[in-house]
Amino acid sequence: MTLVDIRQKVLAANAAVAAELRRRFAGQGTLVVNLISSPGSGKTTLLEATVRALAPRLRLGAIEGDIATERDADRLRRLGIPAHQILTGGACHLDARQVRDALAARDFGMLDILFIENVGNLICPTSYDLGEDFKVVLLSVTEGEDKPFKYPAIFSRAAVTVITKADLLPHVAFRLEEAREQVAALNPESRLLVTSAVSGEGMLAWEELLLAALAAKRSQVSR
Amino acid sequence: MTLVDIRQKVLAANAAVAAELRRRFAGQGTLVVNLISSPGSGKTTLLEATVRALAPRLRLGAIEGDIATERDADRLRRLGIPAHQILTGGACHLDARQVRDALAARDFGMLDILFIENVGNLICPTSYDLGEDFKVVLLSVTEGEDKPFKYPAIFSRAAVTVITKADLLPHVAFRLEEAREQVAALNPESRLLVTSAVSGEGMLAWEELLLAALAAKRSQVSR
Repeated sequence: MTLVDIRQKVLAANAAVAAELRRRFAGQGTLVVNLISSPGSGKTTLLEATVRALAPRLRLGAIEGDIATERDADRLRRLGIPAHQILTGGACHLDARQVRDALAARDFGMLDILFIENVGNLICPTSYDLGEDFKVVLLSVTEGEDKPFKYPAIFSRAAVTVITKADLLPHVAFRLEEAREQVAALNPESRLLVTSAVSGEGMLAWEELLLAALAAKRSQVSR
Repeated sequence: MTLVDIRQKVLAANAAVAAELRRRFAGQGTLVVNLISSPGSGKTTLLEATVRALAPRLRLGAIEGDIATERDADRLRRLGIPAHQILTGGACHLDARQVRDALAARDFGMLDILFIENVGNLICPTSYDLGEDFKVVLLSVTEGEDKPFKYPAIFSRAAVTVITKADLLPHVAFRLEEAREQVAALNPESRLLVTSAVSGEGMLAWEELLLAALAAKRSQVSR
């Protein structure tokens, strides 16, 4: 068996578990969002702001993926939502089995939206389906506008690109239009939102996007 | 053969090529620095500033690793140094064989310092020896001070931590002392430099560190 054979076998096994998860989430009417970015692009900070805005009306939960530390799950638990930390050891992405195990280990109850925050990495998480409704890729304005073309796989597959830390735009050389054009070239169907958890810019559009996706999923399920 | 067996075999084959590279670099008296960070932490920008400062007195070259685009090698070639772009396709790190192939494909001549800029990733490049004298990990102040404990392998193995984008410190909530303590806890022998390619802060210390390492290597080789 070559490395390529093994990789295909691993991805096939992952896809089977992801399909099982997707059926389960559909049955429960839970919207599942898989958040992917570099380390430090602001995934947990975006989730904190989202929880503050939506937790009063929706049942939210989070699965946090990291190499080490319980820090991210702790930050979300402090806001009163159930959060489970997966420690991958050395692995640079979550897989569907880890998500299934997390759901078995912790009673999330019935959720409206489950956020899965992947390991901080623009490459490895791309190929692993976690049973999500869609992937969201975050790109902070401090990382530079050349990242979509440098990491085309994730920007091609994510239904939503969230530009973060827009409050820092006056202090960095980030060409927003160039980033927008690169994302549009890779993925014409995708949505792009410009946000700042500090100033609140774009947060309403992000919340509306989640609510619309949840409503669409519920109407599909009830048909 | 399990995935673990294959991984060990891959790493052993890589180590053999890295040892061959290390002998070659020792024979040429070339200092080799392996730069690792998240996407967008400022590896290429640090190299641009380094080339501007040191190219007048030293023979510098660069090998650039990316998933896609020749952009980073182009940026360094524009400053007049030889630079070779390795495109890894999907792979999230460089390996020693790719470095050997790059040296065969491009005539770098005799170099004082060869910089190897790894694929933007805090996880995968950690285990792959490229024949370098030491690894440098970059952490930009916009990524948050919690990253050393979240990505302990690379911060444990890098001889030097370069904090980048220090000019943005007034605009972000980055606790420098916390980052410093985390790095010191993981790697008491390591050096930590606080830099900004924009303001020039810390660049002299970085250049001195490179010159001292080069001098130390040359005195070892000549013994």
